[in-house]
Amino acid sequence: MDKPLRILIHGASGRMGRALLRLAADAPERWQVVAAVAGRAPLQRVVDGIPQFAAAELSGVPDFDVAIDFSLPEGFEPVLAQCVKRRRPLVSGTTGISAGQRQALEQAAATIPVLWASNFSVGVAVLNELVEQAARALAGWDCDIVEQHHVHKKDAPSGTALTLGEAAVRGGAEPRYASLRAGDIVGEHTVQFAGQGERVELVHRATSRDIFARGALQAATALAGRPPGLYTLRDLLFGQG
Amino acid sequence: MDKPLRILIHGASGRMGRALLRLAADAPERWQVVAAVAGRAPLQRVVDGIPQFAAAELSGVPDFDVAIDFSLPEGFEPVLAQCVKRRRPLVSGTTGISAGQRQALEQAAATIPVLWASNFSVGVAVLNELVEQAARALAGWDCDIVEQHHVHKKDAPSGTALTLGEAAVRGGAEPRYASLRAGDIVGEHTVQFAGQGERVELVHRATSRDIFARGALQAATALAGRPPGLYTLRDLLFGQG
Amino acid sequence: MDKPLRILIHGASGRMGRALLRLAADAPERWQVVAAVAGRAPLQRVVDGIPQFAAAELSGVPDFDVAIDFSLPEGFEPVLAQCVKRRRPLVSGTTGISAGQRQALEQAAATIPVLWASNFSVGVAVLNELVEQAARALAGWDCDIVEQHHVHKKDAPSGTALTLGEAAVRGGAEPRYASLRAGDIVGEHTVQFAGQGERVELVHRATSRDIFARGALQAATALAGRPPGLYTLRDLLFGQG
Amino acid sequence: MDKPLRILIHGASGRMGRALLRLAADAPERWQVVAAVAGRAPLQRVVDGIPQFAAAELSGVPDFDVAIDFSLPEGFEPVLAQCVKRRRPLVSGTTGISAGQRQALEQAAATIPVLWASNFSVGVAVLNELVEQAARALAGWDCDIVEQHHVHKKDAPSGTALTLGEAAVRGGAEPRYASLRAGDIVGEHTVQFAGQGERVELVHRATSRDIFARGALQAATALAGRPPGLYTLRDLLFGQG
Repeated sequence: MDKPLRILIHGASGRMGRALLRLAADAPERWQVVAAVAGRAPLQRVVDGIPQFAAAELSGVPDFDVAIDFSLPEGFEPVLAQCVKRRRPLVSGTTGISAGQRQALEQAAATIPVLWASNFSVGVAVLNELVEQAARALAGWDCDIVEQHHVHKKDAPSGTALTLGEAAVRGGAEPRYASLRAGDIVGEHTVQFAGQGERVELVHRATSRDIFARGALQAATALAGRPPGLYTLRDLLFGQG
Repeated sequence: MDKPLRILIHGASGRMGRALLRLAADAPERWQVVAAVAGRAPLQRVVDGIPQFAAAELSGVPDFDVAIDFSLPEGFEPVLAQCVKRRRPLVSGTTGISAGQRQALEQAAATIPVLWASNFSVGVAVLNELVEQAARALAGWDCDIVEQHHVHKKDAPSGTALTLGEAAVRGGAEPRYASLRAGDIVGEHTVQFAGQGERVELVHRATSRDIFARGALQAATALAGRPPGLYTLRDLLFGQG
Repeated sequence: MDKPLRILIHGASGRMGRALLRLAADAPERWQVVAAVAGRAPLQRVVDGIPQFAAAELSGVPDFDVAIDFSLPEGFEPVLAQCVKRRRPLVSGTTGISAGQRQALEQAAATIPVLWASNFSVGVAVLNELVEQAARALAGWDCDIVEQHHVHKKDAPSGTALTLGEAAVRGGAEPRYASLRAGDIVGEHTVQFAGQGERVELVHRATSRDIFARGALQAATALAGRPPGLYTLRDLLFGQG
Repeated sequence: MDKPLRILIHGASGRMGRALLRLAADAPERWQVVAAVAGRAPLQRVVDGIPQFAAAELSGVPDFDVAIDFSLPEGFEPVLAQCVKRRRPLVSGTTGISAGQRQALEQAAATIPVLWASNFSVGVAVLNELVEQAARALAGWDCDIVEQHHVHKKDAPSGTALTLGEAAVRGGAEPRYASLRAGDIVGEHTVQFAGQGERVELVHRATSRDIFARGALQAATALAGRPPGLYTLRDLLFGQG
């Protein structure tokens, strides 16, 4: 890679935003953060060499190659509009977006490459693909999805579990869900298929939250040169895009 | 053992009853079934060398060393009364007994050795003991119990899961439950303790229903020479009786 | 299905042979065993309505639609030759065949449909496919295969583990193996991919040996109408044949 | 606790030493590090408020309540001698100590409370206790220990696995070992007991290395008021000391 990818980080003060800044700083030959955008006005204009912006200043950020958005639902449409206006790809992991916002994303996909995911781990993306195939080949088997997260996680089932469930449904299964909240578990998802006398279990275990930021940065790189469209991590990993 | 243990099987036509008959027949030097009692009048008086009785004929069965009861709630009190009358131990796995029946069992324990269990597997009994100790040593950790059974099992959580939960509560934990019903799973129970940065999982997997009948026969043998009292499998395994 | 499939069972007196006979008898509308061939001369010419033959009489068996072979290496070539001569498909699970016998199988595939597998479970076949895909998408992750079987199993790693390992190698991984021999475990295989901060585990658990006979019968049905060739269970399940 | 415990950290520049310093600094009301001792002469005499010493200066450190040692085998005897001389307890997790050093530890136990452990996680200590009890109650079952660690770990089986194995042996089992080295796995230990038709699995999963330093600090607190003797974590957790 000749030049590092120029990245806009939208939602820079959240947990994911900070992880993105840290991991990008670890590999300056691959990623250069040209703007860190947070909800409130920045205390300093430049932090660790990175220009800081308030959400209200979004239209004034310098040029970028890809935007990565881990903000709040109210921040989603402004960054999407800015990407469309500048013809730049958007990688978003903002949760809780509405049906209308989802529709806006799909419309934007006519103009720019967009990728929204509930979970940016490479392992989870692989699991999504495997689950759909297993469901297809194991017709008639029972399908259960069990997920575990730390006690501070409020929503259940997790967004990742629901996405895995959609993959199972596409394969023809009818998944049921169970959710556990315990300790400081980063995230564990098991998709089980049970037949007569045998079972298949597909499991993902996350032990570090860095996997999500690392996957988002990898997705940004993979999305950079693509034609407009609505992408998934699976498209980028399994080359079905 | 000089002579085989003389056993009354109460509930002989049910799944557990039939397994008890089969396993006892496999080891005639250890167990001799002197009466097989079922709800309805028997078609033949003797089957495979074993005398058959209807429930209504219970008072007329020959002498026995221990009674093993896997019947229905309405059959529980008659067999209990018969054991008290004859001063013989009772091993029972009948599910769905009422609070009043439970009380009758406790009263009988003043006269005869009695053991009621929701699950006769040796492995589950060991798990019960380990769960209580783990709960005690892991104060403040989160406790979750996940159980899996075949799709035909209607009650949830399983009786075994609830018993494990009571062990956790005795140790000071506050367990939560999740139940899965899938395929032809014989029975799986996981008790998980989650702290900061580490977890302990205690798992029991049953792959054959014979473990319950085998455990009930072993319990009958262990209960035979004991003084009156209310026993548990843990008492017999860990010598705390 | 208008008529039941006419099946030759070669190796009828072994454990798999007996399971095939039992499962076929449970579904006479699907499968009709027209000949049960065992190593030694049969004591009776017809057992439970099924004609019995010694291996030496193989050339005299009645017409069949598919042959299923779970015999010994010395029995493999005669049944293969008989299938080629009669232009009938062969499903074989005979273990320990030599490189030369493997070559004979491949040559026969020019004339008839043949399928040899180390493991006929549908779940294991699905796992094979998933492992190859996971290995491909998870480049650079560590790959470990852990298998467990009952204490009477002598070979290690199991044939199934080695087949899973070949799938991983096709996907670009370099698997390592660990084998456990314990209790009466029917068969468990875990293929684990470990990256930074996350892991994917793909697990198959068998609790009944009937899965192998059931899978072999299903394979026989699926192979019946196919053109000549060397098939795998994955071809039949994922439609890549 | 009225006053914080005054701690000497021996091996302060290693990974464990640094974790101890960080965790102790997080709870100054519980722990006060009065001396950080490393192999080489310190660049600064005081770092973050903590006095620094070279190993050669060990005799000159200020008074402390407990010494915690995670150094190298050559550092073990000097810190042990210093603790004996000052009549202060020693908590040590130094690996690779010789039989002679082990003997010196046991002799010191006549004078001071000492605790050496291969693994300071509370969860692992609990597992040790459970394994011994399970082995005792599950006589005749097969016992297997499977451990997983990151690819940089060189010894196998892990010290923790061997300690678990000793617990199994005390309970009457004959454990076998399997070791996996994959990804950045912090540490996972499974002790499996397999009988006929059922299995018990006891699992510990570590996701953060802080569990070892946290456990060592808790052990230091628990050891502070005890009479001389050779302690184990299990003694402190299960009150058998």
